[in-house]
Amino acid sequence: MNFPLQKVLIIGVGLIGGSLGLAIRRRGLAGSVAGFDRDAARLERAVSLSAIDKAEKDLKAALSGADLVFLAVPVGSMEGLAEELAGLLSKKTVVTDVGSVKGDLVGLLEKRLLPNGLFVGGHPIAGREKSGVEAASAELFEGAVCLLTPTPRTDAGAQKTVEAVWTAVGSRVVFLSPQKHDRVAAAVSHLPHVVAYALVACLLEEESAEPDLLSYSAGGFRDFTRIASSSPQMWREICLANGDQIVSQIERYQSVLERFRKSILNRDGSALEAEFERARAVRERLNKGAENKK
Amino acid sequence: MNFPLQKVLIIGVGLIGGSLGLAIRRRGLAGSVAGFDRDAARLERAVSLSAIDKAEKDLKAALSGADLVFLAVPVGSMEGLAEELAGLLSKKTVVTDVGSVKGDLVGLLEKRLLPNGLFVGGHPIAGREKSGVEAASAELFEGAVCLLTPTPRTDAGAQKTVEAVWTAVGSRVVFLSPQKHDRVAAAVSHLPHVVAYALVACLLEEESAEPDLLSYSAGGFRDFTRIASSSPQMWREICLANGDQIVSQIERYQSVLERFRKSILNRDGSALEAEFERARAVRERLNKGAENKK
Repeated sequence: MNFPLQKVLIIGVGLIGGSLGLAIRRRGLAGSVAGFDRDAARLERAVSLSAIDKAEKDLKAALSGADLVFLAVPVGSMEGLAEELAGLLSKKTVVTDVGSVKGDLVGLLEKRLLPNGLFVGGHPIAGREKSGVEAASAELFEGAVCLLTPTPRTDAGAQKTVEAVWTAVGSRVVFLSPQKHDRVAAAVSHLPHVVAYALVACLLEEESAEPDLLSYSAGGFRDFTRIASSSPQMWREICLANGDQIVSQIERYQSVLERFRKSILNRDGSALEAEFERARAVRERLNKGAENKK
Repeated sequence: MNFPLQKVLIIGVGLIGGSLGLAIRRRGLAGSVAGFDRDAARLERAVSLSAIDKAEKDLKAALSGADLVFLAVPVGSMEGLAEELAGLLSKKTVVTDVGSVKGDLVGLLEKRLLPNGLFVGGHPIAGREKSGVEAASAELFEGAVCLLTPTPRTDAGAQKTVEAVWTAVGSRVVFLSPQKHDRVAAAVSHLPHVVAYALVACLLEEESAEPDLLSYSAGGFRDFTRIASSSPQMWREICLANGDQIVSQIERYQSVLERFRKSILNRDGSALEAEFERARAVRERLNKGAENKK
């Protein structure tokens, strides 16, 4: 496929949608980048931050001439949006999404969108502490992994287009089935967030007995509060949409933590040191992986 | 008390000992900063990195003329070191430590050191991903909290001296009893480390079923691997020395995590969002606290 595309439409101009707009515009990947958002003020901010060329107020007009559409709304709003889009698509319009959950969602979106358009599920594994278009960055996807989740119903040309855009904005594209995606995302992203949220909640409870507790905290705990400062609404929706996989990952985590607790209770120093050593080696492996990518 | 001190001796020139040396030298808080370490190569590196003025090979000579001594060795080596020091101290020598655990340790150190010298327990809540004197920094303690744990046996003048040094290197000094220290440290530091180590261990196990798993990970998980890359030997010793408090904090955490698991299992979106919102607010509070300090 060849750049530039004629027109890219981004529906939902928050952190991810806004960053996509900035990245696509910066690299000249599209003749124009239009934005659509239920929140008129946010849409205006996206224009003033140059995340999009044009703010569209009407979905039909927004879609006119668009060869690629990103659904960058919260997971819980995807299906309703797809229903609205369904009648407005042309046979050549490629639609993709950026939802953090894929399993059931891809099937639902295919059901709504495939009769009239083309659809490929996607999930850029990128985010920031801050949410909102104000935190958007043209570099957000550089060096990140973008998971695409084609199915037997996915059009090969549409898949190539979506893959090419993510590659062009600096991401490494990996293909997984929607079901495998949800297991992987539960492990590497959803579980860490739940673990961090629970840790912060735990210290909040302890704080009622020890009012100055949090003021004694250092780097380690502050990293947790960073992870736990993502959008509560977004994480609510992710937990609802990928609940089964997340619960299963939490249960695996619970059994590992219980093993740690018993080793500490039994003062089993060599078991503990072996666990800590294995965990430390992961960091070195990830750092090496990051260097090799450069 | 008035700076400069005549001579500061740092026993154990790793990350914390080395950073103390750099910070004290940079600010001219002592006429000389001597270092002592069982590891001759590390001691030489501390000299070449200017973390200490002089490498001492003999403990008795090292102590000669020292008005302040920092014990910056691993928690598990403190008692043996104190035993060696006991006969070599003068009545005016102030000894303090930087151990991450205080409860029983302070009593043990007082028993060894107080007959001949002065002792004040301390714990700077500062650290870095990297360990070793190569990672030492004169700014490590700036903006950090340093917990001092005086007891009824602590000399008031010795306490003033130790407090003055930590304040001068940029830390906020807080006084806690040794027992309260251990509960606070278990909550804000030891528990977060165990939780992070367990998360990395959990993903390592999942990786055996999904070999590319870790390559899909993003910022959230990488923060955990940073926390879990601290020295395994150090964390082994902390877990052994403060085991009871850490186990009790893990159990509190387990009950919070189980509450989260049940909310996800029951798809209780409003309970989840309320938990996430409370956790997010902590971050804002900590950030405000940090700004107010400036």
